[in-house]
Amino acid sequence: MRPSGRNLDQMRDISIETDITKHAEGSCLIRVGDTHVLCTASVDEKVPPFLRNSGLGWVTAEYGMLPRATTTRMRREAKNGQSGRTQEIQRLIGRSLRAGVDRVALGERQIVVDCDVIQADGGTRCASICGGWVALKLAVNALMKAGDVISDPLSEPVSAVSCGIYAGQPVLDLDYPEDSEAGVDGNFVMTGERLIEIQSSAEGTTFSRNQFEKLMDLATQGCAELMKEQVLAVS
Amino acid sequence: MRPSGRNLDQMRDISIETDITKHAEGSCLIRVGDTHVLCTASVDEKVPPFLRNSGLGWVTAEYGMLPRATTTRMRREAKNGQSGRTQEIQRLIGRSLRAGVDRVALGERQIVVDCDVIQADGGTRCASICGGWVALKLAVNALMKAGDVISDPLSEPVSAVSCGIYAGQPVLDLDYPEDSEAGVDGNFVMTGERLIEIQSSAEGTTFSRNQFEKLMDLATQGCAELMKEQVLAVS
Amino acid sequence: MRPSGRNLDQMRDISIETDITKHAEGSCLIRVGDTHVLCTASVDEKVPPFLRNSGLGWVTAEYGMLPRATTTRMRREAKNGQSGRTQEIQRLIGRSLRAGVDRVALGERQIVVDCDVIQADGGTRCASICGGWVALKLAVNALMKAGDVISDPLSEPVSAVSCGIYAGQPVLDLDYPEDSEAGVDGNFVMTGERLIEIQSSAEGTTFSRNQFEKLMDLATQGCAELMKEQVLAVS
Amino acid sequence: MRPSGRNLDQMRDISIETDITKHAEGSCLIRVGDTHVLCTASVDEKVPPFLRNSGLGWVTAEYGMLPRATTTRMRREAKNGQSGRTQEIQRLIGRSLRAGVDRVALGERQIVVDCDVIQADGGTRCASICGGWVALKLAVNALMKAGDVISDPLSEPVSAVSCGIYAGQPVLDLDYPEDSEAGVDGNFVMTGERLIEIQSSAEGTTFSRNQFEKLMDLATQGCAELMKEQVLAVS
Amino acid sequence: MRPSGRNLDQMRDISIETDITKHAEGSCLIRVGDTHVLCTASVDEKVPPFLRNSGLGWVTAEYGMLPRATTTRMRREAKNGQSGRTQEIQRLIGRSLRAGVDRVALGERQIVVDCDVIQADGGTRCASICGGWVALKLAVNALMKAGDVISDPLSEPVSAVSCGIYAGQPVLDLDYPEDSEAGVDGNFVMTGERLIEIQSSAEGTTFSRNQFEKLMDLATQGCAELMKEQVLAVS
Amino acid sequence: MRPSGRNLDQMRDISIETDITKHAEGSCLIRVGDTHVLCTASVDEKVPPFLRNSGLGWVTAEYGMLPRATTTRMRREAKNGQSGRTQEIQRLIGRSLRAGVDRVALGERQIVVDCDVIQADGGTRCASICGGWVALKLAVNALMKAGDVISDPLSEPVSAVSCGIYAGQPVLDLDYPEDSEAGVDGNFVMTGERLIEIQSSAEGTTFSRNQFEKLMDLATQGCAELMKEQVLAVS
Repeated sequence: MRPSGRNLDQMRDISIETDITKHAEGSCLIRVGDTHVLCTASVDEKVPPFLRNSGLGWVTAEYGMLPRATTTRMRREAKNGQSGRTQEIQRLIGRSLRAGVDRVALGERQIVVDCDVIQADGGTRCASICGGWVALKLAVNALMKAGDVISDPLSEPVSAVSCGIYAGQPVLDLDYPEDSEAGVDGNFVMTGERLIEIQSSAEGTTFSRNQFEKLMDLATQGCAELMKEQVLAVS
Repeated sequence: MRPSGRNLDQMRDISIETDITKHAEGSCLIRVGDTHVLCTASVDEKVPPFLRNSGLGWVTAEYGMLPRATTTRMRREAKNGQSGRTQEIQRLIGRSLRAGVDRVALGERQIVVDCDVIQADGGTRCASICGGWVALKLAVNALMKAGDVISDPLSEPVSAVSCGIYAGQPVLDLDYPEDSEAGVDGNFVMTGERLIEIQSSAEGTTFSRNQFEKLMDLATQGCAELMKEQVLAVS
Repeated sequence: MRPSGRNLDQMRDISIETDITKHAEGSCLIRVGDTHVLCTASVDEKVPPFLRNSGLGWVTAEYGMLPRATTTRMRREAKNGQSGRTQEIQRLIGRSLRAGVDRVALGERQIVVDCDVIQADGGTRCASICGGWVALKLAVNALMKAGDVISDPLSEPVSAVSCGIYAGQPVLDLDYPEDSEAGVDGNFVMTGERLIEIQSSAEGTTFSRNQFEKLMDLATQGCAELMKEQVLAVS
Repeated sequence: MRPSGRNLDQMRDISIETDITKHAEGSCLIRVGDTHVLCTASVDEKVPPFLRNSGLGWVTAEYGMLPRATTTRMRREAKNGQSGRTQEIQRLIGRSLRAGVDRVALGERQIVVDCDVIQADGGTRCASICGGWVALKLAVNALMKAGDVISDPLSEPVSAVSCGIYAGQPVLDLDYPEDSEAGVDGNFVMTGERLIEIQSSAEGTTFSRNQFEKLMDLATQGCAELMKEQVLAVS
Repeated sequence: MRPSGRNLDQMRDISIETDITKHAEGSCLIRVGDTHVLCTASVDEKVPPFLRNSGLGWVTAEYGMLPRATTTRMRREAKNGQSGRTQEIQRLIGRSLRAGVDRVALGERQIVVDCDVIQADGGTRCASICGGWVALKLAVNALMKAGDVISDPLSEPVSAVSCGIYAGQPVLDLDYPEDSEAGVDGNFVMTGERLIEIQSSAEGTTFSRNQFEKLMDLATQGCAELMKEQVLAVS
Repeated sequence: MRPSGRNLDQMRDISIETDITKHAEGSCLIRVGDTHVLCTASVDEKVPPFLRNSGLGWVTAEYGMLPRATTTRMRREAKNGQSGRTQEIQRLIGRSLRAGVDRVALGERQIVVDCDVIQADGGTRCASICGGWVALKLAVNALMKAGDVISDPLSEPVSAVSCGIYAGQPVLDLDYPEDSEAGVDGNFVMTGERLIEIQSSAEGTTFSRNQFEKLMDLATQGCAELMKEQVLAVS
């Protein structure tokens, strides 16, 4: 029995509210259960030095949590610097979004995706990838509407979900009470039926290949549901 | 004529939405026109070292802006450290809120108020003080309900508004287009009819005492309006 | 009764010794009672990037305290970084001095004013502004003598003084024993009869508008006395 | 055809030289082809604060590269701080080794495993995990010999290998020329037949589940070879 | 011929003004030619952790330069951190002063000596050691007068002087024009006729043992002169 | 009697193994007794800004210790920044090597020498200078072979050894047990019969000139032995 009463293969409720800030070229507030992330996409006509005059675009991401996004207040990273965990997450988000972008079609410009967690209840990096893609797509749509980009550099959504082994059972979309107890925890990033990234780790235990395959089945199902919501949000 | 079409002594629309995050003891989203700030109050039963065994409580504040709260994206402070401006603002918020607290009645505990700007359009420090007080009051109410605090340590709201000289005229509640052009810019923090803090500065110009008195009249009127909304929000 | 035996509206003794270091283009040691600040002005023919090719000059300031300028030794900022308080003060000094400069007449060059407190007894930021202006004026005089600046970019001195409510009474020019006890503390920066900056704050209390007006009266009187000494020093 | 002429499922030569420094409780120099890593294990009778009086042991890891371990000299991290990549790698090494430790049997003490890359040619994190386990095992053996640990907290070796899709083919144990060209790159950490961690990512492309399964087959085979060498080294 | 017209073995004028700040337990302003250093000694009844309950005292030093102590303005270390040069110098000052202290007689307390260069013209580290000893001695005298220290922990002064090979000639007490041209530059710290520290280095050249012996002769003579002035200053 | 049983003027065994890493232009592993340092020389065709278009070359050095090079594990500098001691040592190594280089003959390029201590037993800075010179010479030889440098910019080796007063006796080449007990400790850098740098310091004691002369005699003898080994290594 899951703490939330969900079935083993049941996602939390997903909602994606777009255009929630007036300044950003693309933005959304994604809610996956009680995990709420504010995502913005900022277009910058300058690329990083290593891409100058390459004709290629770039997508990168930054991630943060408000200090009281969590059950107990965390120290503010602006005062203490980004933790290793934060850096790891924002590298993952950037890599994942880039894998779903045609960088030639985007043209020599950079889009910075900011994912800021307003309220956390497990799965913040996965929600950030899903919401980040929506913000990115909205920014790209604006570029296309303005004629600055001709051919759409984004095809299918990039989605991500966590799966893990909780109380001996493979479960989909872990919330915080599950995540903090799970022996094995995996994050799966997909686009359509193809994989972009798999991170599956055990803290203080191990898992069999058979167990892992079940996590992958759940992830495939979860990502399909997420993609539907993402497509709806940007239509 | 003000860019927004407002009268010289007209505040922007104010809205305060409370309890917008499930983790914090008190929280609100305050909107003063297009300036939107998320405020949370976190109760910590430990006080800073200099207050241990003093019987006195403490209130402190931290301030931040999401990178794309502004028209062009700013660098993330978690990567670069807090700017002098950020530190100045959070010290002001903390001092202002403390001036409205009976620290004996609060008891030996600390409340940390986090003010994070989601969208900026001028006056973020003033909105943070107003919203911060609401979050603080909600947290204190919870402590009183739980019997941890007996006598209410907060009386009248602490409010703040900016006034300045724009196009040669004293105006109330500057928005960003006014703020960036104003020769003189002041922030006034009040509680009831009494003053907590005045910061009035001229960049590259000067002002007469007579002009300053007019700013103060406007500020008194603006704070009275804000206090009404704050009282409503916590009722 | 004030700890020093001064009248409520009595300044401490002021002395300004000029040209106290052989390297700087302008320099002075200002003493306001037992507060001693070494001020130097350094001319730099390069302006910050945002002013290149603008034809406009710039004045900026930095502030520091020697570790044993205070009654008990403070940690050295070179080892720990500048505190928020230090940054706030040096921003104030720079803003104040700039307000008294005709940046077109100065021409496209920068003057950096360094204010280093040798001995502190309250009011270090105000003494820094007064002494900083003297150093700045001396450096400008040298530029004019050399023919690098034609029309004097400085007119009346920029002066600053603190006033506060001590033991229930408004007093002028707080020394450290007063400052550490005062419920309300204000810094007033003026040039001639005009205002440049007002910072008045209450820590853990509040003040009436009437009280504030009395502080402002005292400040106007104190700045007039300071200006006389500044004018003498640069003659 | 692989640049090195190896078969698709062929590991590089593995050598593990133990006890290569006189100070550390356990140490080895592991060579996987031209990737050479110096691993030491340091026993500390103190555990981190969160484990005090828990009776549980802890294993953690730190990772570094000498500046000229690479084809072109990298900046020294002691001067610039650890990069996000470095932090990510050392967190992976620590997590992986902990998964193979019985922390009750280890007792309340900490072992710090340092992995310093002397020469890099791809796969440094995997070599670090393999060599790190050997150093850890030697330190544990010393503790057991001294009677400080009774029951062996380590059973089978923890091994790791990278696999990827190079020139369209799944290959085992990527060297640097392959790694820098591979569209998909995965690191697999195993103990016996069980999995500890999977990290598989695509930069700017995607992969099918079928392709991933082939990488996993290769990794299983490679880890089995590594485990044999690790067992030999500590016998 | 030396730029200053001094003889090869001629020191610059030395002056030591004591008690120049009201807060410090001991203080002086030492002038060696145009090199001016403000030295304070601060008594702290707490020792560093490694000396607690040892019965032994400690003396340590910190060094800094005001930004405009030099011909062109240097960046403020409070903004950029202490340079390697600064750290090297303050370690030297601390080591040198400690060598002249009977740490048992001092008792379990710490004295921090701050040396801040007001104006630099070569030889700032040597002037700091000489002036630092004077400040230290004055602080110790106060402790003895108060009965907190019984037996004098300081005997003969600790003195320091630089010598170098300038224009092919060994010269005593280099000023800045000599220092910046000298091929070999040495700092010698002495107490009475005994040596505490020798640092002699060649940048881009070498020196013979015979040349070095001549530097040492000059240093011995210079330190004797300095010691006389130091003794006078504390009498 | 020395702890190692060596005679007062007896060096430890010296061994220099060259070309121990495939990437660096020059490299060696130097062993002086149980002190083992890995030295690499990296050629960079760019010089630092202050040398651009000067026609002069540059040699600089960086120094580090692996965390478990010592008897108890030290904190990793990549996590905590370089200590003052580390900076002092790497400045010494760079200065020493530069003194032995004809910078015109080297041509406008930079060589960075990295010295990383694998195992420490006293005298790591001296071993680094000796091994650093060997790596530098090998890199220069490669440049000469390639025709990029015509005339050899290095003549005699740069060597360094420590001497000190241990148990009242002047001894050559201190190992760690001696170094940690020695009242006086000196490092001597020489090339042929000429001196490059002398650093001799007493912690908490003093020494006579006569004692110092004996240290210098020992150093001259030790450097001669080291130079022989260095010449052999690069032949």
